Amino acid sequence: MARVLVLYYTRSKNTKKMADMIASGIQQAGVEAVVKDICETSAEKMLDYEGIVIGSPTYYGAPAYQVKQFLDESVVYHGRLAGKVGGAFASSANIAGGNETTILALINAFLVHGMIVTGLATGDHYGPVAINSPDTRCKQICTEYGAKLGNLVKTLYP
Amino acid sequence: MARVLVLYYTRSKNTKKMADMIASGIQQAGVEAVVKDICETSAEKMLDYEGIVIGSPTYYGAPAYQVKQFLDESVVYHGRLAGKVGGAFASSANIAGGNETTILALINAFLVHGMIVTGLATGDHYGPVAINSPDTRCKQICTEYGAKLGNLVKTLYP
Amino acid sequence: MARVLVLYYTRSKNTKKMADMIASGIQQAGVEAVVKDICETSAEKMLDYEGIVIGSPTYYGAPAYQVKQFLDESVVYHGRLAGKVGGAFASSANIAGGNETTILALINAFLVHGMIVTGLATGDHYGPVAINSPDTRCKQICTEYGAKLGNLVKTLYP
Amino acid sequence: MARVLVLYYTRSKNTKKMADMIASGIQQAGVEAVVKDICETSAEKMLDYEGIVIGSPTYYGAPAYQVKQFLDESVVYHGRLAGKVGGAFASSANIAGGNETTILALINAFLVHGMIVTGLATGDHYGPVAINSPDTRCKQICTEYGAKLGNLVKTLYP
Repeated sequence: MARVLVLYYTRSKNTKKMADMIASGIQQAGVEAVVKDICETSAEKMLDYEGIVIGSPTYYGAPAYQVKQFLDESVVYHGRLAGKVGGAFASSANIAGGNETTILALINAFLVHGMIVTGLATGDHYGPVAINSPDTRCKQICTEYGAKLGNLVKTLYP
Repeated sequence: MARVLVLYYTRSKNTKKMADMIASGIQQAGVEAVVKDICETSAEKMLDYEGIVIGSPTYYGAPAYQVKQFLDESVVYHGRLAGKVGGAFASSANIAGGNETTILALINAFLVHGMIVTGLATGDHYGPVAINSPDTRCKQICTEYGAKLGNLVKTLYP
Repeated sequence: MARVLVLYYTRSKNTKKMADMIASGIQQAGVEAVVKDICETSAEKMLDYEGIVIGSPTYYGAPAYQVKQFLDESVVYHGRLAGKVGGAFASSANIAGGNETTILALINAFLVHGMIVTGLATGDHYGPVAINSPDTRCKQICTEYGAKLGNLVKTLYP
Repeated sequence: MARVLVLYYTRSKNTKKMADMIASGIQQAGVEAVVKDICETSAEKMLDYEGIVIGSPTYYGAPAYQVKQFLDESVVYHGRLAGKVGGAFASSANIAGGNETTILALINAFLVHGMIVTGLATGDHYGPVAINSPDTRCKQICTEYGAKLGNLVKTLYP
């Protein structure tokens, strides 16, 4: 059965909260979701999952370096993630403070891996964003995004 | 049976040549591909296909305005393209003259539509790029990309 | 004396309101600012100004095609805008609905022209963003951004 | 007298070679350039320079995590780099393998710091790119870019 790994880096717990909300949406689609702190796992773990979702706070318009380190270390598995589903989310202190570029940096990394990504026709189109603590708006988008990712994983890995 | 629409805007014919190469790759995956000049079709046509690939020359780091006009006019079908597969390619006069940002602008538009995109683990990761006339390197990437898109469409729309 | 041209494309008037707010900030820096609807001017006009600011609503993660058409048509003056100051702003219906990518598409176009751009250390880092009608937060950022652009133009073109 | 700090991260020496080429262009503009391995300096050093240029290989469409770590650590000086000039360059194994997104990630970080950046009207518009070992084409662009950055620093910090 297909499974999704939801990784986050967090200091304020906002990104962790979003990870849990997205995992809940994935599970609503009938797909198992495992949430992990990206600093407490290794790139190798990604091999065990059909979907990989990564979230980060927005530091200088991009994911935290700890997230980038994880991605850089995934190079030893390059090619083996191709065809898996990727998803991204970000938390930020400002409305236009770099949250879209943070998400798109993660999506770019998934594309370099040959992975498959999906957008959202409503709301935060590239992936869910929280401005400070995730509110009701954010929760709804996280749940919807999780469900969308879960359904995509189910279709691709029945 | 699933079909893919390959749209291009071109002045020098370089982007048209790439469209044909990508269509050939799609067909190698056993999926029908229809190639059209984006100026001679309408956004409504996208409803009839399960995959949509768009290519443009690189003008000021983004697709030609004629391509953007086509995308802006697709807003009347917003939501109805969600779940379809999108692909993008670009031609350019310079190595780092804006070809990646042109492709990513198209990918962003697909994500806003709620569409599904895939990267390439080797070569031009976000989508095929030609520097001037498409050479052997470009042809190989276009074919590989087309096949990858064709297979993704087949899996999602069996 | 250095002057700044503030161009906007608008349907809802939100982007026009932002243009006026930014022009007000430029004038606070002691620099003349002229606000124009981008559809009622021509690319040639940019030659007469030392600073050019462009704002657009967010359509499919990028500026409206009318703005792109204006940029594409500026190619006949390519090279003659190098060294001028560029600025960008966007209005959007959603928090993470493509406003950053819209602004960055404009900044990319300025960079292709060889122009000079500046970020904001606080607030909307790449350029001002309004979510729907520009509020007090937006007004403050627009004014600050205008003043910053005005001062940069004054320093470069004393 | 204004000075520019040219930082690089490298494994293959390609990025270091580019750093030297850019420094040479800066010096041709009559501005002092100091080249340093980013791993052997600290973010605090940026306070001593009026221009900061950063180069990185392209890993997953973005700078190496060591470069991102340096940027993340610069947060303690946030606001104090505003108004300085930033420049970016990248080396890559592929033509469209993420070199533009690597440069733009660095430019985004400069904009978040409130810094000033410039594009190139010819060649690699966002900043110099080497495909593998920097060739004659790359050397010319690096020199031109360095000179352009040097002149901008001189104008802003006479």
